[in-house]
Amino acid sequence: MLKVLKFGGTSVGTLERIQNVANIIKKIKDEGHDVIAVVSAMSGETNKLIEYASHFAKKPKDIELDMLLSSGERVTSALLSIALNEQGYESISYSGREAGIVTNDEHTKARIEHINTDKLKVSLKKNKIIIVAGFQGVSSEGRITTLGRGGSDLTAVAIAGAIKADVCEIYTDVDGIYTTDPRIEPKARKLDKISYDEMLELASLGAKVLQTRSVEMAKKLNVNLVSRSSFTPEVEGTLITKEENIMEKPLVSGIALDKNQIRVGMYKVKDTPGIAASIFTALANANINVDMIVQTVAVDGKTDLDFTIPTADLEICQEVMKVFENDVENIDYNEDVCKVSVVGVGMKSHTGVAAKAFSAMAKENINIRIISTSEIKISMIIDEKYAELSVRALHDVYNLDK
Amino acid sequence: MLKVLKFGGTSVGTLERIQNVANIIKKIKDEGHDVIAVVSAMSGETNKLIEYASHFAKKPKDIELDMLLSSGERVTSALLSIALNEQGYESISYSGREAGIVTNDEHTKARIEHINTDKLKVSLKKNKIIIVAGFQGVSSEGRITTLGRGGSDLTAVAIAGAIKADVCEIYTDVDGIYTTDPRIEPKARKLDKISYDEMLELASLGAKVLQTRSVEMAKKLNVNLVSRSSFTPEVEGTLITKEENIMEKPLVSGIALDKNQIRVGMYKVKDTPGIAASIFTALANANINVDMIVQTVAVDGKTDLDFTIPTADLEICQEVMKVFENDVENIDYNEDVCKVSVVGVGMKSHTGVAAKAFSAMAKENINIRIISTSEIKISMIIDEKYAELSVRALHDVYNLDK
Repeated sequence: MLKVLKFGGTSVGTLERIQNVANIIKKIKDEGHDVIAVVSAMSGETNKLIEYASHFAKKPKDIELDMLLSSGERVTSALLSIALNEQGYESISYSGREAGIVTNDEHTKARIEHINTDKLKVSLKKNKIIIVAGFQGVSSEGRITTLGRGGSDLTAVAIAGAIKADVCEIYTDVDGIYTTDPRIEPKARKLDKISYDEMLELASLGAKVLQTRSVEMAKKLNVNLVSRSSFTPEVEGTLITKEENIMEKPLVSGIALDKNQIRVGMYKVKDTPGIAASIFTALANANINVDMIVQTVAVDGKTDLDFTIPTADLEICQEVMKVFENDVENIDYNEDVCKVSVVGVGMKSHTGVAAKAFSAMAKENINIRIISTSEIKISMIIDEKYAELSVRALHDVYNLDK
Repeated sequence: MLKVLKFGGTSVGTLERIQNVANIIKKIKDEGHDVIAVVSAMSGETNKLIEYASHFAKKPKDIELDMLLSSGERVTSALLSIALNEQGYESISYSGREAGIVTNDEHTKARIEHINTDKLKVSLKKNKIIIVAGFQGVSSEGRITTLGRGGSDLTAVAIAGAIKADVCEIYTDVDGIYTTDPRIEPKARKLDKISYDEMLELASLGAKVLQTRSVEMAKKLNVNLVSRSSFTPEVEGTLITKEENIMEKPLVSGIALDKNQIRVGMYKVKDTPGIAASIFTALANANINVDMIVQTVAVDGKTDLDFTIPTADLEICQEVMKVFENDVENIDYNEDVCKVSVVGVGMKSHTGVAAKAFSAMAKENINIRIISTSEIKISMIIDEKYAELSVRALHDVYNLDK
């Protein structure tokens, strides 16, 4: 098999951990696989460099930040390659540019445009282990770019897609995707398999193991992703793959919790045509990611509007809302809410999944403020004090520990 | 004027010092000059990376060391560019590759083959200050290379030569070339100008400000070099230039001292044809840099052979000498010697310079063990205990403090 592996900052955070990663790679190579490993900077390095830059400028130029920040991954890749070579495993490190990763020129958040796999293929043919500095590429103008948050994951997935690898294993400090956060529900169970769409919902809902961008790319390029741990490499991780590859589709795969939500209530909004449109357009223009929206039926030409925004956007939202002060009787902001979600591809073909969720909440006397559903997800806004209780109740009602 | 500046590791050793370098560059730009600045890694960074590598391997592959070690200069170049941009001076950082520096593929000690100045010229035309990561280039196979010791100086000189800069200023922590080491002779005087050849002699004799390789390249490419300090940028440095540019040629320019010398005495060597040749061939094959050689006239078919080697080569030399044990009555190694040298282009056209040196030594009762002379240099091996005394005596006899 051709395996693309990715090791994040924590996995290569010290020299001892880099040696540990070398040992994982050696074992995989010994099993007869070809290996391309993508590495992040040693944890802390990138932040150190950002701190250095902030000594000189509040807002350094993106093009210079990319030159600066791309250095950390190169250090890790060279060290890992040195470790492997020393133990008789022929290895070579590649910068993003050398690995053929061509991006657009949106510095600090560049998008991969294509990957020239020629060099990679030559090195694989020579039976070399390839170590690629993650998070970086080169623009068509020949300038170093970086890919933004989760960039090393993207590097790995994109290479796996371009070179048609059999699997792309993302190593972090957790050993897979769980039915819910085990710190909340100790009975949470590691999933063997999960579909891209479920993973996307879980990722966007706060599961931090994999980022939305790389799961989306894996889905698009049809890359089999595995989430596993570099600290317990003997434990099989979770395979994220297309729905067709999952034989037994569980009704529900997981419960996600997102506490970074604010519920905005707009009371007695003038129910003139287009008022909702202009509110949400204004919010969108301010780059605020409005999530769940509920509009109650108008009474006396007035309507109530409820929606949620990420906690970080509170101030900007208040600024935007000033324009609508005359169109509304009252606006309040409730930070003491959270979003709990039930995710599962099985919902598509089964009825009663939502009803089960609502009755589980009712049984615990938890009041649901807002509900939104999609084909494979039910999200509910509830009071934050019930966050953990609701997760455990939902985990239980769907028998996720079995 | 187009000025190429080079700032070494000490000059960019902290964030404050990088800011100081930015201030120096701004001043030069304000005076109306175009600027290309070459920077080293922050002092300590390269050693840290080498230490990291030695954690994994005693002898890491050169090609991986180059990937590893080239990262430090990139960090400095980005930070300096960020500092300049912030203060309204348009600036761009370039890696060695981006600056068009093409080398051969002798990793960790690559030689610059040519410089493609297209990108540099475009940026200069846009009136940008260019910051180049020193010490590195790219091989024709597209792989990062480094240039070995003094590599950033080489980068600066090579760019200055390729782009026909008016001057190449090398900033260190000393403000120029002195008639001798001021720690030995407080009356030592900073030279305004010195020829390439004199500088080469002084450099090879232990003056550590400029390295032989970069002075040689400056001579070859006819680059006007200036040695000056980033800590006292207001002080004019020393211009190193071709002899024709120096109007008043002093008889003697400086006195150099090298304590890292061992005198090897071979007594009663069989005076057979070719014996000296085979001894020095063996030493050369062991990469030992034999410096001064004296052979005394043969008596009874025997001869005495005296020569000096660098202290670091003692053990290898002793190993090599084992082969000749039967050809010689006795070999001894004297570490308590030093080499004191008088350097000056004026010697070529004046007589009596050497006689003056010898009588100065005689006056102090210093016994000269070995003498060697070139067109512009007189070197003497003497007992190490007289090292400082002899330097001061020579400095005095040639009136170098005037």
